[in-house]
Amino acid sequence: MKYVRNCWYVAGWSTDFSDQPRRATILEENIVLYRQVSGQMVALADRCPHKSLPLSRGKVVGDNIRCGYHGLTFDCEGRCVRVPGQDNIPKSAFVRAYPLFERHGIVWIWMGDPARADETKVFDRPEFTSPEWACHHGDALHLRANYLNVADNLCDPAHVAYVHPTTLGNPESEDVPIQSEKGDDDVVVTYRWIRNAPPIGFFRKFGGFVENVDRWHYYYLYPPSTAMIDFGSSDARLNLKPEDRHQGVRILALHFLTPVNATYTIDRWMHIRNCELDDESAGERMDELFRIAFAEDKDVLEAAQLEELKANGARPVRLAIDKGANLYRGVIKSMLESEARA
Amino acid sequence: MKYVRNCWYVAGWSTDFSDQPRRATILEENIVLYRQVSGQMVALADRCPHKSLPLSRGKVVGDNIRCGYHGLTFDCEGRCVRVPGQDNIPKSAFVRAYPLFERHGIVWIWMGDPARADETKVFDRPEFTSPEWACHHGDALHLRANYLNVADNLCDPAHVAYVHPTTLGNPESEDVPIQSEKGDDDVVVTYRWIRNAPPIGFFRKFGGFVENVDRWHYYYLYPPSTAMIDFGSSDARLNLKPEDRHQGVRILALHFLTPVNATYTIDRWMHIRNCELDDESAGERMDELFRIAFAEDKDVLEAAQLEELKANGARPVRLAIDKGANLYRGVIKSMLESEARA
Amino acid sequence: MKYVRNCWYVAGWSTDFSDQPRRATILEENIVLYRQVSGQMVALADRCPHKSLPLSRGKVVGDNIRCGYHGLTFDCEGRCVRVPGQDNIPKSAFVRAYPLFERHGIVWIWMGDPARADETKVFDRPEFTSPEWACHHGDALHLRANYLNVADNLCDPAHVAYVHPTTLGNPESEDVPIQSEKGDDDVVVTYRWIRNAPPIGFFRKFGGFVENVDRWHYYYLYPPSTAMIDFGSSDARLNLKPEDRHQGVRILALHFLTPVNATYTIDRWMHIRNCELDDESAGERMDELFRIAFAEDKDVLEAAQLEELKANGARPVRLAIDKGANLYRGVIKSMLESEARA
Repeated sequence: MKYVRNCWYVAGWSTDFSDQPRRATILEENIVLYRQVSGQMVALADRCPHKSLPLSRGKVVGDNIRCGYHGLTFDCEGRCVRVPGQDNIPKSAFVRAYPLFERHGIVWIWMGDPARADETKVFDRPEFTSPEWACHHGDALHLRANYLNVADNLCDPAHVAYVHPTTLGNPESEDVPIQSEKGDDDVVVTYRWIRNAPPIGFFRKFGGFVENVDRWHYYYLYPPSTAMIDFGSSDARLNLKPEDRHQGVRILALHFLTPVNATYTIDRWMHIRNCELDDESAGERMDELFRIAFAEDKDVLEAAQLEELKANGARPVRLAIDKGANLYRGVIKSMLESEARA
Repeated sequence: MKYVRNCWYVAGWSTDFSDQPRRATILEENIVLYRQVSGQMVALADRCPHKSLPLSRGKVVGDNIRCGYHGLTFDCEGRCVRVPGQDNIPKSAFVRAYPLFERHGIVWIWMGDPARADETKVFDRPEFTSPEWACHHGDALHLRANYLNVADNLCDPAHVAYVHPTTLGNPESEDVPIQSEKGDDDVVVTYRWIRNAPPIGFFRKFGGFVENVDRWHYYYLYPPSTAMIDFGSSDARLNLKPEDRHQGVRILALHFLTPVNATYTIDRWMHIRNCELDDESAGERMDELFRIAFAEDKDVLEAAQLEELKANGARPVRLAIDKGANLYRGVIKSMLESEARA
Repeated sequence: MKYVRNCWYVAGWSTDFSDQPRRATILEENIVLYRQVSGQMVALADRCPHKSLPLSRGKVVGDNIRCGYHGLTFDCEGRCVRVPGQDNIPKSAFVRAYPLFERHGIVWIWMGDPARADETKVFDRPEFTSPEWACHHGDALHLRANYLNVADNLCDPAHVAYVHPTTLGNPESEDVPIQSEKGDDDVVVTYRWIRNAPPIGFFRKFGGFVENVDRWHYYYLYPPSTAMIDFGSSDARLNLKPEDRHQGVRILALHFLTPVNATYTIDRWMHIRNCELDDESAGERMDELFRIAFAEDKDVLEAAQLEELKANGARPVRLAIDKGANLYRGVIKSMLESEARA
């Protein structure tokens, strides 16, 4: 399928990589990633142009990588620098190199024209490093589903009542209307407040709420494939205005979607919280609840993906709750058209 | 592939279904089946028209079924009766409903035009409820084979000597000629009598025959996919006429074939006997012998199916023993042509 | 894919076959092999022309094979000699028979025009039966790789330093040039001598070398799919001429490649040695080292095959070390063109 290419995708957490070569498949391309002696990351096409052995089956030698079949050696820009048994290097002996950028424990890869790689466009938030917030890296969720369907799920407050009844939703939200709009840089924001309702499981555990709360969800979808969900709760008696929601217990859940192929996506997730800042275990306890919820998403997304493939292009029913997803799909369409023209 | 659609197929035994939704694939269509509060069966297309989640992943709520993703709720005729978060129901929010009919512990589904569903055409026999016969439901045999090949096997007395040497056949039958003819309603009947020969394993166990017997097989194939095999034995010294065979030990073995797809068939089998009527365990002991025999059929049919696919349309050798199968294939061809014209 | 057909391929070791039918797939054709009462081998197309059951599911009856479905019986030339239930044998009731030839414990099959099968063209060597050599049958290595890629690997001295660092190679060989030439009957010979270098693992164990050795590799590739690797070592102080290499420890490693399909090959390997002739266990100890090395080849060949399929026809970089493989590929191309013309 066609993917948006001139953008940053997450290749992995910083802790995933070392001087051992590691293979990743992103936008259907096989890539080998490793660290140079300095720690600097390298990403190359993972196929030796001689006999097609993946370079990830070879060895990192200093800053270079050596093929495990005949010893052809490539530097961090993909140039062949040695062919054992001959002095000249054939012109065609090179592999593609991908720009990389690493920050906040996240390794980003640029899948499009290297000349257009722009580090200022990497997703960033002040909360990553603010002393008022605690940041916790989660995990990588592998989904046998198209990334667009996974992204739909990440701007979709309506599903939580049905898919996550014990963790992130409850029946009180079923009929509360949802707002969606497109903001700067084509970011799609979908949100709703559920006022004066019993707390969901998550905020019984974090915040210790028992009495009714006001609960909010703001889903920010940064095309093509980053989502930030700002959600939280506060005592309903305070009747907080939206702009004061940082007075409640508030979580920023981040999802970085990496399309592997048309039916496989890796969702790397992490979260930033404004509560229990000094308790290292709080992040891990949140992980446990998220794992339950994301396993529920995975079940639903994978079953729906199979059925969608079988339905073979049947037009879906459009509902009011889909407005955010439809805005997002429109942005993706524009991005793809713009890249096709260029 | 093309299937005969305007007919009843077996969707399962009555005991397979409850108020828990259950998925079945029939003629390559995914279907969810469940019981209403009254016990009445419901069958709907198993794909929510919103985001494609199978409805079988959702919940039965009263007589309706609710999607497990966003709560869209469908009634027993497939009409959407609720969309959480909005009042109006989009016109395109419906799923196909399939006519069902339940009798003698068997659930039948009509895969064609609902207006043509005719309950008088469901396969029935007086022996199901006669006090002179005992009826026993068997099991569901899953075969990685096309239903036409499975049906061939069910109008084929010749294979028993080679495929079922210890249960349903023995070498004495190898060269006894076979008769085949087409009866009313295109039922294909294939039969033979093996006179004055040692009993097969089955009738050593049921009937306790030791001395020579007369043995008969009448294979009735009701297109497209129901088979009844009337087989039995009696003491050879009685020299029974065919019309007097109910004086011997006689079994009606029923097979209801449900095509799942071009290379997968479910064969639900049961049997009705005129012996040991009061011994509940007799049916189960027969099951055990049938299980041995049907596992042998499964081995042969699956191996032959793979090889037939590989042979890719090579014309098979036609033999005298194939007359029944050829008559049956001719009826299927006519039925398909007739449906294509309509 | 297209294969060279008018040649002998190895169907198995002699010990693989008995009066039990055994199925093999060669050049994408399913074949049943068995021995007649005399021990003579038979090879027939493994599909009954009646209902497509593989004949290998049936029974050998005397010198014939009987189908396990309806008892059709075929003789060793593939002629149907019995159809139970009828006297006449339809003209189309036959299966293809393949010429076979057995020698030195190896069963060869001719996959092309039977009229052109020529037993004088079966691969043979005087060392098989010479008292100065000991012959040891190894094993069958199954590789998910095209046979051409496997053959490349068998005329490729350059890979041993990278793929087999503990058994068959070491770094001293990395930059030693390689010679390749085409000899009589289009046999491709690729060779090199590595003079005055530490012994590889294999010759530390066999020959007990510790000091520097002269080491040779002669790769003989007999198109389409037999390889003989003459390799060995001798004390470097002797400075042996090539023609005197039988004074050293010398091994002939034989590989018989049988293409199963475009991505699956069976490599049956054995070896003949000029050392430890009277020690039966020496062959088995060599097997163990070969098994380590061939498992390394398998890893590399299978990973490269997958990547090559994905690269979908990208032209490989050509290196000096590929000369032997390129000569071999050229011979295969000529053979295929010659068969296409005929």
